[in-house]
Amino acid sequence: MKFKRSERIVYMTSYLLRHPNQLVPLTFFVQKFEQAKSSISEDIQIIKETFQQEEIGIVTTTAGASGGVTFVPKMYRREAKELIDYLCDMLQEKERLLPGGYLFMSDLVGNPRLLGQVGELIATMYMDEEIDAIVTIATKGISLANAVANIMNVPVVVIRKDNKVTEGSTVSINYVSGSSRKIETMVLSKRTLPEESNVLIVDDFMRAGGSITGVMNLMSEFKAKVIGVSVLVESKEVKHRLIEDYTSLVKLSDVDEYNQSFTVEQGNCLERFK
Amino acid sequence: MKFKRSERIVYMTSYLLRHPNQLVPLTFFVQKFEQAKSSISEDIQIIKETFQQEEIGIVTTTAGASGGVTFVPKMYRREAKELIDYLCDMLQEKERLLPGGYLFMSDLVGNPRLLGQVGELIATMYMDEEIDAIVTIATKGISLANAVANIMNVPVVVIRKDNKVTEGSTVSINYVSGSSRKIETMVLSKRTLPEESNVLIVDDFMRAGGSITGVMNLMSEFKAKVIGVSVLVESKEVKHRLIEDYTSLVKLSDVDEYNQSFTVEQGNCLERFK
Repeated sequence: MKFKRSERIVYMTSYLLRHPNQLVPLTFFVQKFEQAKSSISEDIQIIKETFQQEEIGIVTTTAGASGGVTFVPKMYRREAKELIDYLCDMLQEKERLLPGGYLFMSDLVGNPRLLGQVGELIATMYMDEEIDAIVTIATKGISLANAVANIMNVPVVVIRKDNKVTEGSTVSINYVSGSSRKIETMVLSKRTLPEESNVLIVDDFMRAGGSITGVMNLMSEFKAKVIGVSVLVESKEVKHRLIEDYTSLVKLSDVDEYNQSFTVEQGNCLERFK
Repeated sequence: MKFKRSERIVYMTSYLLRHPNQLVPLTFFVQKFEQAKSSISEDIQIIKETFQQEEIGIVTTTAGASGGVTFVPKMYRREAKELIDYLCDMLQEKERLLPGGYLFMSDLVGNPRLLGQVGELIATMYMDEEIDAIVTIATKGISLANAVANIMNVPVVVIRKDNKVTEGSTVSINYVSGSSRKIETMVLSKRTLPEESNVLIVDDFMRAGGSITGVMNLMSEFKAKVIGVSVLVESKEVKHRLIEDYTSLVKLSDVDEYNQSFTVEQGNCLERFK
């Protein structure tokens, strides 16, 4: 059975979108469609140009016997700006302020479509880095970490603050929570992260950065290299931040619990979008 | 600027794949491409037929002024069978058995590509139901719930076993853990689930079903209707199961901790794939 070009293009576009950041050998499509390599290359060229023009992402092709095609999703500056503006508007709602200067964000973190866009934004900032795993802290960071990992095609590693039996042998560290100054514990199963991995740390909310400092200490126990730290919201209400090098989508400041007021503005991540 | 048919097809295929279970008005594409409605309809027909033939999913079109096109991802029986066989092989590894008859599954739950397929399988089983939200229990169920919600285009609602301040006012219930017979608490923020929602409960592992019974009781506090319960792994080592109506991908039995042996076989979910 012969496929028309338009049918091949539907299939190949779907396949690439469903397998981001994965090298697909050209021979896979050549065999599937029983077509000459040159025709398949032309199909890919059409997909590549449309993806670029319509800002869907980047299609790279590599030549040679082990050659193939890789789709790298990319968020462009205009879309990143729109997304951050949308998040700022959404989070600015007065009723979101919770005791302790936190923001209610469960609806945002529970919205898969919106979180998918946030994941694409974060993945774009680190697209040129070699990353082996996304590391996060239970429970709020998990959905966000999954959204980033979906795009990057790498595993998610979840650090827990309790020690459940279902993970096998674990490594744990104690850390001082940056804002409450309490001593807490975090635990990671040995089996979940190979030694000497390159990791990106992702979380929903950062205040002084105590938890993330804890994660970094735990990572050094696994001989991991922390390539970056990215948070959805950072709170500016902090005198000494423990972490200096991070990206944030949104910045929270001027929290006044008595008057139920606060300010939400864009974080530093747009600097990464030229 | 005019688009060629092949370029339109690349764009429309991408758009539909990135917006599953969402009605896209035909006029959106008509305006984008400055093309007659009839040409756009022809493009969609090509996408529809290829998606069906290649078992990517279903494209439905509705006529009229508010008409449009919806992409519904669907997993077909052959692929569901392959996935379940793969999961059985993977989980059969001897080293996975943990104290208490649990299985190490963090690598599976942390693999976004694999979890995406599991999400598509579960979403397919409930594709004909009206579902407003996916409900799960922290922490292990979160990634799976996100994978299902991504496909279904509905929010994820996370029930917690601790009570953190960052969620606003909450409803909590006590329940008896089916296997350990301990009394535990589960908590859900009032704001995260509107009353009278139709929910699908998703979790990674079910033994006697105590947690899921707890979730069902909590759901009745929210006047929610439980449309279904779906778990990745069910353990058969249970005399009285508290939940009768559920789907599972994989079944664990014959757990012998002393000899480090157990059996993994396919769960009941293939019955839903004709």
